[in-house]
Amino acid sequence: MFNELRALHTRCGHAGRSRWACGAGSGGRAWQVVPDFARYLVEFPFGDIYARKALGLRERELATVAALCALGNALPQLRVHVHAALHVGCKPAEVVEVVMQMAVYAGFPAALNGLSVVREVFAESGIQLPLPQD
Amino acid sequence: MFNELRALHTRCGHAGRSRWACGAGSGGRAWQVVPDFARYLVEFPFGDIYARKALGLRERELATVAALCALGNALPQLRVHVHAALHVGCKPAEVVEVVMQMAVYAGFPAALNGLSVVREVFAESGIQLPLPQD
Amino acid sequence: MFNELRALHTRCGHAGRSRWACGAGSGGRAWQVVPDFARYLVEFPFGDIYARKALGLRERELATVAALCALGNALPQLRVHVHAALHVGCKPAEVVEVVMQMAVYAGFPAALNGLSVVREVFAESGIQLPLPQD
Amino acid sequence: MFNELRALHTRCGHAGRSRWACGAGSGGRAWQVVPDFARYLVEFPFGDIYARKALGLRERELATVAALCALGNALPQLRVHVHAALHVGCKPAEVVEVVMQMAVYAGFPAALNGLSVVREVFAESGIQLPLPQD
Amino acid sequence: MFNELRALHTRCGHAGRSRWACGAGSGGRAWQVVPDFARYLVEFPFGDIYARKALGLRERELATVAALCALGNALPQLRVHVHAALHVGCKPAEVVEVVMQMAVYAGFPAALNGLSVVREVFAESGIQLPLPQD
Amino acid sequence: MFNELRALHTRCGHAGRSRWACGAGSGGRAWQVVPDFARYLVEFPFGDIYARKALGLRERELATVAALCALGNALPQLRVHVHAALHVGCKPAEVVEVVMQMAVYAGFPAALNGLSVVREVFAESGIQLPLPQD
Repeated sequence: MFNELRALHTRCGHAGRSRWACGAGSGGRAWQVVPDFARYLVEFPFGDIYARKALGLRERELATVAALCALGNALPQLRVHVHAALHVGCKPAEVVEVVMQMAVYAGFPAALNGLSVVREVFAESGIQLPLPQD
Repeated sequence: MFNELRALHTRCGHAGRSRWACGAGSGGRAWQVVPDFARYLVEFPFGDIYARKALGLRERELATVAALCALGNALPQLRVHVHAALHVGCKPAEVVEVVMQMAVYAGFPAALNGLSVVREVFAESGIQLPLPQD
Repeated sequence: MFNELRALHTRCGHAGRSRWACGAGSGGRAWQVVPDFARYLVEFPFGDIYARKALGLRERELATVAALCALGNALPQLRVHVHAALHVGCKPAEVVEVVMQMAVYAGFPAALNGLSVVREVFAESGIQLPLPQD
Repeated sequence: MFNELRALHTRCGHAGRSRWACGAGSGGRAWQVVPDFARYLVEFPFGDIYARKALGLRERELATVAALCALGNALPQLRVHVHAALHVGCKPAEVVEVVMQMAVYAGFPAALNGLSVVREVFAESGIQLPLPQD
Repeated sequence: MFNELRALHTRCGHAGRSRWACGAGSGGRAWQVVPDFARYLVEFPFGDIYARKALGLRERELATVAALCALGNALPQLRVHVHAALHVGCKPAEVVEVVMQMAVYAGFPAALNGLSVVREVFAESGIQLPLPQD
Repeated sequence: MFNELRALHTRCGHAGRSRWACGAGSGGRAWQVVPDFARYLVEFPFGDIYARKALGLRERELATVAALCALGNALPQLRVHVHAALHVGCKPAEVVEVVMQMAVYAGFPAALNGLSVVREVFAESGIQLPLPQD
């Protein structure tokens, strides 16, 4: 496991915050319940899926933001992945566009609740709103 | 857009609170993220859908309350539309019946969580509980 | 139970087709698995919920069409309730409006899949498309 | 109704807390909106379903924990049923396993949010974490 | 991986049909798209989760049947796990009870669609309906 | 409307198949029910959302594939958008990665059902399986 984790760290481009950058952070206190679950989360999503080279981390994070926003019952995880998306190089406007696009596929409430999460993460990250329009 | 909005205002029967009455309110701070989204929400749901004459606003709001309660991950929007339903002339008991009926189609948890929202909106609106039974 | 069923029959305005008219039909062959479930379905949704007088059957069926369309994983039941809605006096255009409105709350795919069901039921019922626009 | 309730009480093995033990508690204040709904919840889920003898209460509660965790939009009800599962004799580790298993069928966010609820209920119940591993 | 698989085989109590017994069968042709996914499915759900000893396979399968029935959009997988539940020793009536119970938590449509799947699997397995009532 | 459509055509890089390329195709026969809905679909998702320049069409389609796969009740629309993703320049392996990644966020059944759709679209498009691994 440690080899895989180290490889993932390298791929994410930084050691110290890689757990956040790749989105594992949301389980925080879940580890207290069942420490093995932390290992599964590292091994399957991060060791197996995110480490695959056929898709970039930028695209992976945008896809995850889309899915979590559309599902609508995973807002704590959406928050983690908005941070993660910014961390791996997505522009703030790209994150906003993906969330807004979910109004088409999952309805306006999903998009509105997603935009609330985005607004909070942007505030925490010092990103000023509204974003400059192109 | 302004013409359509004005027409919608007229149809809703009042100018000042029409955005709430028709359910747009829940996006409140989402506009800060992406002001265009406010325009989309006015144009598509309200300009296009709610403005259609083949169904009354009363039935539209009851249908929306049903859907938001059944989906279960849109409670802030359900709150807006319980207010909206009352505003366009639905009786409190009619709103309660629709939410309770969702136990059949989406399960008791969805109905119970919906009734919690209803209880809060009724408290804010000065509607006394329990409602008189017929 | 029989008394309640009879009352429901009367309320639905016809004896012979009341099970369909009120939407129980979709379970058809489920009774073969567990006959008690037929009794539960009659007692709770129909004996308890639909028999309540504080909301009309027309509004109940529109609310159910909205919820089943929004949930998206209950198309056989949506089919039954589009029939039921027409049977209790909803106009074809009203059913279409409710389904179309779900694009706002549950996304375009839910509304498109719902409209496919509506189209099939209308074809079975001899309702010509497109409906006359007002 | 009272006879059925009494039978249920007996089956649950205690009178005073049976409503909680069997999971009805989450509706608490919903009864204020529509007292009839309390009766429906007692009659259908508890009088009809949980009282059936072909499946034990232990298995019923584990199945309910699984479903509520997977659905993801019923966390207040999940909390009630984690309490109920412990009350009818499920071991803490069994509850944790069911919730963790939901990562496979409903995704890691559903399991993580479920584990947060479990952690809170265990804290309220004086169950120490992490559980001893076998 | 082979060691883990072999251990799983042993735990499931038979070699030849263990993939079915543990529920992996539904991905059948998905392997053609991306063979690695078969490995992930064996490693995470079966190598990691189902192999844990703190919960029996019988309870695991009942929990999975509950979740897949409640989710409502995983009927092919529900079919696999109804087979799997029977295979690891669940009684037909226990499977029926779990599915029926989902009416309470996910609504009658989810339970009805689940019962249709159960009926088909029982027919394939030579289990006669209706089951003897106790 | 026609101007917007024409602009969209240009942006999509081809006139003749742009409706498919951008994902509107799935509503096919829904237009027969309510022709206005075709106009809404063109105006809001395509005129408003997809035409925005802050995110590329490639990323938009990957995000849509992610969301439709995760939602799990929109397989006809997923099919359209797998075609669309290929059409706007996504590599087959990128589409597969996004779908496979949904196992993490929406569970293995959602990913498996998504991979079935991908397999069918690839067969229709003459893309050979398994894809070469990197």
